Amino acid sequence: MMIVMQEGATEEQIASVVARIEEVGASAHVSHGQLVTVIGAIGDREQLTALPVEACAGVDRVVAILKPYKLVSREFHAADTVIDVRGRKIGGEHVALIAGPCSVESREQILAAARAVQAAGGTMLRGGAFKPRTSPYAFQGLGVEGLRMLAAAREETGLPIVTELMDPRDLESVLEHVDVIQIGARNMQNFQLLSEVGKAGLPVLLKRGPSATVEELLMAAEYIVKEGNRRVILCERGIRTFETSTRNTLDIAAVPVIKQLSHLPVVVDPSHSAGRVDLVLPLSLAAIAAGADGIIVETHPYPELALCDGPQSLPCAAFDEYAARVADLVTWTGRSLG
Amino acid sequence: MMIVMQEGATEEQIASVVARIEEVGASAHVSHGQLVTVIGAIGDREQLTALPVEACAGVDRVVAILKPYKLVSREFHAADTVIDVRGRKIGGEHVALIAGPCSVESREQILAAARAVQAAGGTMLRGGAFKPRTSPYAFQGLGVEGLRMLAAAREETGLPIVTELMDPRDLESVLEHVDVIQIGARNMQNFQLLSEVGKAGLPVLLKRGPSATVEELLMAAEYIVKEGNRRVILCERGIRTFETSTRNTLDIAAVPVIKQLSHLPVVVDPSHSAGRVDLVLPLSLAAIAAGADGIIVETHPYPELALCDGPQSLPCAAFDEYAARVADLVTWTGRSLG
Amino acid sequence: MMIVMQEGATEEQIASVVARIEEVGASAHVSHGQLVTVIGAIGDREQLTALPVEACAGVDRVVAILKPYKLVSREFHAADTVIDVRGRKIGGEHVALIAGPCSVESREQILAAARAVQAAGGTMLRGGAFKPRTSPYAFQGLGVEGLRMLAAAREETGLPIVTELMDPRDLESVLEHVDVIQIGARNMQNFQLLSEVGKAGLPVLLKRGPSATVEELLMAAEYIVKEGNRRVILCERGIRTFETSTRNTLDIAAVPVIKQLSHLPVVVDPSHSAGRVDLVLPLSLAAIAAGADGIIVETHPYPELALCDGPQSLPCAAFDEYAARVADLVTWTGRSLG
Amino acid sequence: MMIVMQEGATEEQIASVVARIEEVGASAHVSHGQLVTVIGAIGDREQLTALPVEACAGVDRVVAILKPYKLVSREFHAADTVIDVRGRKIGGEHVALIAGPCSVESREQILAAARAVQAAGGTMLRGGAFKPRTSPYAFQGLGVEGLRMLAAAREETGLPIVTELMDPRDLESVLEHVDVIQIGARNMQNFQLLSEVGKAGLPVLLKRGPSATVEELLMAAEYIVKEGNRRVILCERGIRTFETSTRNTLDIAAVPVIKQLSHLPVVVDPSHSAGRVDLVLPLSLAAIAAGADGIIVETHPYPELALCDGPQSLPCAAFDEYAARVADLVTWTGRSLG
Repeated sequence: MMIVMQEGATEEQIASVVARIEEVGASAHVSHGQLVTVIGAIGDREQLTALPVEACAGVDRVVAILKPYKLVSREFHAADTVIDVRGRKIGGEHVALIAGPCSVESREQILAAARAVQAAGGTMLRGGAFKPRTSPYAFQGLGVEGLRMLAAAREETGLPIVTELMDPRDLESVLEHVDVIQIGARNMQNFQLLSEVGKAGLPVLLKRGPSATVEELLMAAEYIVKEGNRRVILCERGIRTFETSTRNTLDIAAVPVIKQLSHLPVVVDPSHSAGRVDLVLPLSLAAIAAGADGIIVETHPYPELALCDGPQSLPCAAFDEYAARVADLVTWTGRSLG
Repeated sequence: MMIVMQEGATEEQIASVVARIEEVGASAHVSHGQLVTVIGAIGDREQLTALPVEACAGVDRVVAILKPYKLVSREFHAADTVIDVRGRKIGGEHVALIAGPCSVESREQILAAARAVQAAGGTMLRGGAFKPRTSPYAFQGLGVEGLRMLAAAREETGLPIVTELMDPRDLESVLEHVDVIQIGARNMQNFQLLSEVGKAGLPVLLKRGPSATVEELLMAAEYIVKEGNRRVILCERGIRTFETSTRNTLDIAAVPVIKQLSHLPVVVDPSHSAGRVDLVLPLSLAAIAAGADGIIVETHPYPELALCDGPQSLPCAAFDEYAARVADLVTWTGRSLG
Repeated sequence: MMIVMQEGATEEQIASVVARIEEVGASAHVSHGQLVTVIGAIGDREQLTALPVEACAGVDRVVAILKPYKLVSREFHAADTVIDVRGRKIGGEHVALIAGPCSVESREQILAAARAVQAAGGTMLRGGAFKPRTSPYAFQGLGVEGLRMLAAAREETGLPIVTELMDPRDLESVLEHVDVIQIGARNMQNFQLLSEVGKAGLPVLLKRGPSATVEELLMAAEYIVKEGNRRVILCERGIRTFETSTRNTLDIAAVPVIKQLSHLPVVVDPSHSAGRVDLVLPLSLAAIAAGADGIIVETHPYPELALCDGPQSLPCAAFDEYAARVADLVTWTGRSLG
Repeated sequence: MMIVMQEGATEEQIASVVARIEEVGASAHVSHGQLVTVIGAIGDREQLTALPVEACAGVDRVVAILKPYKLVSREFHAADTVIDVRGRKIGGEHVALIAGPCSVESREQILAAARAVQAAGGTMLRGGAFKPRTSPYAFQGLGVEGLRMLAAAREETGLPIVTELMDPRDLESVLEHVDVIQIGARNMQNFQLLSEVGKAGLPVLLKRGPSATVEELLMAAEYIVKEGNRRVILCERGIRTFETSTRNTLDIAAVPVIKQLSHLPVVVDPSHSAGRVDLVLPLSLAAIAAGADGIIVETHPYPELALCDGPQSLPCAAFDEYAARVADLVTWTGRSLG
């Protein structure tokens, strides 16, 4: 941690900062420039996190040197984490293609989607039973009944199930029926929920919040891993910007950035980032080319009848062709669908 | 709702959209331009919300005409909502000055802060017992023990207490000890939590998420009011932008915008928006001048020792002078501290 | 154009808006909803652009239906525009690989770069003679002397030259020495400059401003095409967001979005968008996979000595391998380097 | 300047960075932490700006310690700069109220506006003769004829004139007719134009670009001051964010931030930031309360007939009441209209 003092900071102010640093067991190195003094604080991450020197008199700003996360970092674990979900793998040489409708709407709908996903070579089935909706007047999901329909679809197709959990009180039902717990973008910093799914131990798919930095996403993952659950899949799904031609702006650079900083696998959601079905294929190809470990994409038997996210869902009838193109590019990158 | 068709949409596609509109009991008016056809769908809010025409063939985009919220709108309730919290008022002619430390750290600390707030004319005491922290390694608050210290401070000073709730499982303890439940920015779209505090009935201070639009803030408030609890105070606390000289960018225009759209009171948090103590006074004055119904501000007996948010906390020793200046501007606007 | 009236707008206000619409020769269709009246104005683009009804009493907002640009749109010209620059092509089946240093620094440097680009199969040479720099104290480019060095590099390698123009007073020198005029991101809305390069007739590479929407980029291109110059290449180079792990956020979705809206070719600049050399390859591959018509990338013989943009420049020694990977993916997409 | 090395940087890489620092005459201080080495480079601003170490092997990132501007900084000149424009003052105890229409449309229009501004106590007249317009099909201003009309309005009312310059080739005409040259937001980083107006010597009103940081605004001002012209007025006019209820987001905190960093006066434009006439008064009051040295606001005799910016223009008939409220708050702050 470097503490940059204000121009004109007094010797007394400098000494006081040094004293605060030494109090927590860290050591201080003072460096006088022509205009400005900089104090380096050297110690371990936890000592330094507990050092609130920014409010001391004469301090201009504090620059962190160490990364604020540890367990999720490449420095902590150099090799790619590979996660096995009922025999399907993600990470390293294994690319996931997770597909299905936004929400489970009926047994027929989820089964139709599951069959299309399986037939096209998809590796997992997604579908929401609990739906976070901006409007209290919109469809909120089928709840536990939806979880049962997902389990039935797995029964028939063998595809592992990914579904969102929003409330810790639903954790038990979710654990009973599914294989990967999704934490949605709006809950990326719901720290209680993160700790709970960390303790639960099932693989977690953690979506980046629309205004979260990459660093904050990694800190959120640290909450989960800290509880002993290292099976976390990160998901880039677009960030909020001024551009209005897409619903969010897919931060494609986040894929290689995260892969450099962390050992965890990263998937991309081309459906929610763009909100437009015509962009799903180009964004999926971009994600694979940029090194993503997988895609999580919406497909629906009848998008024009979907209770949510119709405009961004691939029709199941077109999923085959889409998946073939994705799989072909995965092969080009020297990897294979998990 | 206006449905703008693509250039070159066929008569069949237009007819199919019209049929979808009529199916839900709304009526459709077709208007042919030189290049583009627009279909107006006329019906009630709920009918139209359930109309997923965006995914229909030939549709370019859908433009909402009605606002997506109702109970929180000025149209629904024209007069300013005035909320009474243990005799202190906010809304209409009553301006609140809510102050206190970021976190409750000890009995001595919260009592010292409470006395300073009361002496200076503050109207409520804020302090966190449950703290959402980006890092799992940072101080997470004293929990229920902190709630008891807040209640003790109320006992001594008479100031109503505002504190944050993050987990529905802590609701009961919070209800027992405090007067206003704060929903933090990260939980603005934690819809389960919103419904729970809606049912609980205590006044709620709802903070705008750092990437939430004003409309989304109002939708979140609608979740609370829909459960029968109209005592909601909205809080502008800065949005996330590219500017780095402040932690967030205070969206001062949101104050008059919200007051035009909604009858609910709006307060401004100058501490979290800027993250810098030197900006607290100018931003507080700006907020009052722009018409805010109150300020929620951090003050700490010893900011340089604070376990969190020291750099943005006013020292209690300076709070008196700060509060006097704010109160004087409140008077200038023709209102008074509640 | 749809004019949405406020709830409670009077019949007189509605009649007054209708009158304004009819005054400019457009026709008005009034549609009364339960709460809100909407007036459709039907006429041509120029009539409607000249219609300032937004300030009329009782108007809530105006929703444009027609796109505000014409000549650059797909509707105006359905086929991909293919631009020929001294025999190298871009657009349609032809992908450009434009490479070179940020700035021309010396005859040796630009020749070394040009040879590396040519040897690796690059299709054009980039290099700045006039440099826009945030700081008045930074290197501002070699000016006309730099243009001569670029021309010498073309002489030796045959590569067409792309260089930036910032001041209309330098247009003549630029026309004399180069093949494609680049308009930098900071000048995307320098409308005088756009008109001048429109009149000059040389192909133009127009960079998207860091806070410009796709629509504004297309409007800026319209300024050029309107002067009779249809040879415009659009360039996505990252937008400004809150994320700090990259210098800008590459808006990869802009590539397919623009290709749907416009017939003009689109290239991606992976160097400026990320500002980090380690991201150049993954972002280049993402761009090609998403359908970009080319890449404009920085390469320098000795990045660690570069006078600007060293951190984002590929060393020329590594350019060969980079270009081979890009070319291979271009082939995978069914196109070829121009 | 602090150079943070990567974890695992070699001694050779560290030595190489030290050598680069010493080459430019600066000195290097190496500080070894447990995981990371940090090198402090101490020297003057220009030496350090010319130090491109970011591209050296083993470097993780470079943290600037010194501010990148000098002449505009408070450290360089502690007292507030007060600018005198034909006897009207801005800065220090003097607050400016600059008002008038977006564009000069006719002699009658600008005279009507000028009279209203003067009668209400406004201190300068604004009006555009050269208009930057996003669309090439929109009204582009009356040019030199408009400048003459502005001069005539000054003749009659005595109000100094503020007008925008976009093209260096129009500088001479502008110098002949007006008193303050406005550089618009889109040209904030048109460095040629900045240098030209720096040389011309007339006071300059420099608008912040919609995606420019405060630091970049100050760097742009440095370009002007560096040419010997210290009479620069900075203008906050809103930045581009995701929020759509206002055209831009007024960054009110920028006012006190800039006043702390720089001695130059700062004004706020409530018209362009919000784009809505109903927000003009609350935002103007917020600006004055936050410490702005002035307001630049649009007023038009007949907003509903305005050729541009009608929706955000105060009617001249209401300007009197508006100005009185602003003046009263100026008095409350202990200052007076210049």
